[in-house]
Amino acid sequence: MVRNHIRSKMIEPQDCDDGDEHETLPLPTLPPMPRERVPLQKSSICSRSYFMVVMVFFHVYIINVIVLLLYVHYNNGPGDVLATPNRDEASRGSNHHKPPESHQQPSYSGFQRDMYLPRLEGIRVGHVQKLSLVPDKVHEMQTLSLKPLLFEIPGFLSEEECRVVVQLAQLKGLMESQVMVPEGQEELTEQLNLSPDEIFNLLDLNQDGQLQLQEILTHSRVRDGIWLTPENLREIYAGLKADPDGNGLLSLEEFRSLGSDAFQRFLQQRGVKSSQLVRNSRHTWLYQGKGAHQVLRDLKKRVTRLTRLPSALVDLSEPLQVVRYEQGGHYHAHHDSGPVYPETACTHTRLAANTSTPFETSCRYITVLFYLNSVEGGGETAFPVADNRTYEEVSLIQNDVDLMDTRKNCDKSNLRVNPTKGTAVLWYNYLSDGQGWVGEQDEYSLHGGCVVTRGTKWVANNWINIDPDYQRQARYQQLVSQQGEEDAEDEGEQSQPSPEQLHTADSHQEL
Amino acid sequence: MVRNHIRSKMIEPQDCDDGDEHETLPLPTLPPMPRERVPLQKSSICSRSYFMVVMVFFHVYIINVIVLLLYVHYNNGPGDVLATPNRDEASRGSNHHKPPESHQQPSYSGFQRDMYLPRLEGIRVGHVQKLSLVPDKVHEMQTLSLKPLLFEIPGFLSEEECRVVVQLAQLKGLMESQVMVPEGQEELTEQLNLSPDEIFNLLDLNQDGQLQLQEILTHSRVRDGIWLTPENLREIYAGLKADPDGNGLLSLEEFRSLGSDAFQRFLQQRGVKSSQLVRNSRHTWLYQGKGAHQVLRDLKKRVTRLTRLPSALVDLSEPLQVVRYEQGGHYHAHHDSGPVYPETACTHTRLAANTSTPFETSCRYITVLFYLNSVEGGGETAFPVADNRTYEEVSLIQNDVDLMDTRKNCDKSNLRVNPTKGTAVLWYNYLSDGQGWVGEQDEYSLHGGCVVTRGTKWVANNWINIDPDYQRQARYQQLVSQQGEEDAEDEGEQSQPSPEQLHTADSHQEL
Repeated sequence: MVRNHIRSKMIEPQDCDDGDEHETLPLPTLPPMPRERVPLQKSSICSRSYFMVVMVFFHVYIINVIVLLLYVHYNNGPGDVLATPNRDEASRGSNHHKPPESHQQPSYSGFQRDMYLPRLEGIRVGHVQKLSLVPDKVHEMQTLSLKPLLFEIPGFLSEEECRVVVQLAQLKGLMESQVMVPEGQEELTEQLNLSPDEIFNLLDLNQDGQLQLQEILTHSRVRDGIWLTPENLREIYAGLKADPDGNGLLSLEEFRSLGSDAFQRFLQQRGVKSSQLVRNSRHTWLYQGKGAHQVLRDLKKRVTRLTRLPSALVDLSEPLQVVRYEQGGHYHAHHDSGPVYPETACTHTRLAANTSTPFETSCRYITVLFYLNSVEGGGETAFPVADNRTYEEVSLIQNDVDLMDTRKNCDKSNLRVNPTKGTAVLWYNYLSDGQGWVGEQDEYSLHGGCVVTRGTKWVANNWINIDPDYQRQARYQQLVSQQGEEDAEDEGEQSQPSPEQLHTADSHQEL
Repeated sequence: MVRNHIRSKMIEPQDCDDGDEHETLPLPTLPPMPRERVPLQKSSICSRSYFMVVMVFFHVYIINVIVLLLYVHYNNGPGDVLATPNRDEASRGSNHHKPPESHQQPSYSGFQRDMYLPRLEGIRVGHVQKLSLVPDKVHEMQTLSLKPLLFEIPGFLSEEECRVVVQLAQLKGLMESQVMVPEGQEELTEQLNLSPDEIFNLLDLNQDGQLQLQEILTHSRVRDGIWLTPENLREIYAGLKADPDGNGLLSLEEFRSLGSDAFQRFLQQRGVKSSQLVRNSRHTWLYQGKGAHQVLRDLKKRVTRLTRLPSALVDLSEPLQVVRYEQGGHYHAHHDSGPVYPETACTHTRLAANTSTPFETSCRYITVLFYLNSVEGGGETAFPVADNRTYEEVSLIQNDVDLMDTRKNCDKSNLRVNPTKGTAVLWYNYLSDGQGWVGEQDEYSLHGGCVVTRGTKWVANNWINIDPDYQRQARYQQLVSQQGEEDAEDEGEQSQPSPEQLHTADSHQEL
């Protein structure tokens, strides 16, 4: 650039000097000069065609320069909003010598790949990096774990902002996060059409011909929304007289004598307390788009800067979820978003995908969790297997200790984050695919809310939804932007459909 | 850029038109023509100056196109040797909102920062990515661990290449990797000038008033190049009658009664077998630069592609180290390169740094290890703490089990790589600093060569030396390139000083 400029500068005056020099030549008053080196005939120079040549060169020159400039421009700069090639990451993707060769890669045949997702760098546990998210303040972001990639940012929200968010949530009203024993799981059992012997065989993980408590719980820790513990499973055995020899193990005979819905019926008859549910909280959703409270819009902007993702992706994600845990509230360990197989649909792109699929998950690439108050006692966010060397689902229950149980075993989690007012915690629920897009689920992102032992706990969640299938995400974004344009035409003003409209109420309730 | 070009374009022709216009004025023979819309006089078209204008346009056009092409080229591809802005990473560095704000950052005041180090992405253990390193072959690289960031690439060398490297090493001749009990450590002990009570206090890690075997070993597992095990420490106690009560613990009284060099004298008198040394192998160094065997140069090229680093960094690193372990050979767990504090110098940039520093390390950012044969028994490369949740030096010895002892406890290592002919293993000995440069030492990169139980083991090491202080690395590279130019002037040909000349023999021997 610099060189280019200097050169063209150096040439320009030369051009005109040449012109000046020759200007003196055609003066007929001067004596004729001998033409030696330049055998140009006067007649050929004196034709209109020379003028044409000048013009042709001039135009070709202009066109070529413009084409080259366009080439440079489109190779370097980010373009439009929807199809924003995040330049930071465009190159990270191109790190790979042969991107299309990578396996497990959805085909990018439909939409040209022009969006790349930067990932924050964790470096090592304890690493601190400074961030400039708002004017006049520098935030510090500390790496808490690498598996999942997890950061803590104290003072992400001001005291005032925390207060406003809580009040807006109260104004809107909160609903129970989990209704007490929903029905419907029985259908699945019927559909399966397996014999008791086959079920027994599947449950018997170590194939010793007996079902240990942990084998039952690994398979179905949650029964109709009820969280089973080794203790209440023993209680069920006793109530159903399912284990006459009382050794805590179910033999094939003992298992056969149970009806397929024996557990369900027992639990429903006994009645369930809210502390026995998977989660025990109330929540609401706050829209963060155009027309929303300034604090909520500022928050979204700050989250966009924090994640370094294209703003279109953040804009088209779920609204802010605000959650209140009363004393005794908890949320047992879970994944915010599930694994994604080729036949899995994402809730947010399902409409655009235009296919019916057997599995669906929320495709929450990133979770940003805000603590809106400092809890008096308990209420930590626990990551039971953070930075564990291995992840094995079976190992989560050992010797009656269920690491996923946040009412009992938070102290045994690898990592716990204290709820401090204004602090944000960010983690990735999915790995990178190595090509600058969303990859596999990160199983280590398992987390839960420890029981609140004193006071109330207020938190909020921002989830960034991204479809691991690039094509579906691109199609969804295109659809939304078209719809936005249509709406704008209808209403006579520019507006995009709110994410609240796009994310159905159903999908929120269950998550 | 765009504006600049269009402007200069718009101005150039105008300038020259002006020139032409004036040219017509002085012609006295022609009747004065009214100047209206087309003031073109035949004589003016028929002038030499039009020819010149054609030529000038033509040249300006060519030059501008060339300059633009150069601009495009230098913005996209890795270009020159010394100051290569690796674009892949230039942008990774710029990921950060405020790069200079980062703490622990050496100041980049002297040299402008124009080199960035890409890091391979691990994604997760077991992840496989395809690589295009040589024509007509696709290599697969599997992630073995994230701490350290460690990859395995089967078939990195062909059978033929392995054979050539081994033969070249044999031709050059191998030397003992460790001389038997070198002297000199006593001086340090004398310099320290500590009383026995003070030393006792420092060694007593758990402050229980007694020295456990593991407290002695954690502090000084290696004594004058001899690897101490709990067993031979007990033997020393017995030989020196240091522990009369025979409980395996040293009380302060027992410790006081020992002379400061009692251990050394005992070990030297007893005689040392090679199996008791830290490493038990022979090795040599093979230069890979200009004039070296084609296989060695190809290998260097391939390593450059694999690491994705600027070729200057690879070119200026240590030569290839070829190592032979006979049956019974081993190398206890160690770090290829040490921690770097502000006062630590790097061996390879020491000359350019022009300062005397108390600490020095080899600053081997990356290790690429090649297996040149498949070992009949044993000889695995062990990473005792790979992907461990935490790294604690003290925890490396527990209950008489020393995880760093590769003669005894390789089976207890978190990770072992089997030596298979042609396979390469790559890992990072340092973390990223989060700004696209070398950061802190990665302690998890601890590794060793398990004892060879049957046959011979041939391996080779390529280390990429990079100074974590960007300024020192840049100064070193500048110095080398200047020296290269001077040499070229002296010798009348272009040549750079060989890394072999720059890396002193001393530094190789000790590592």
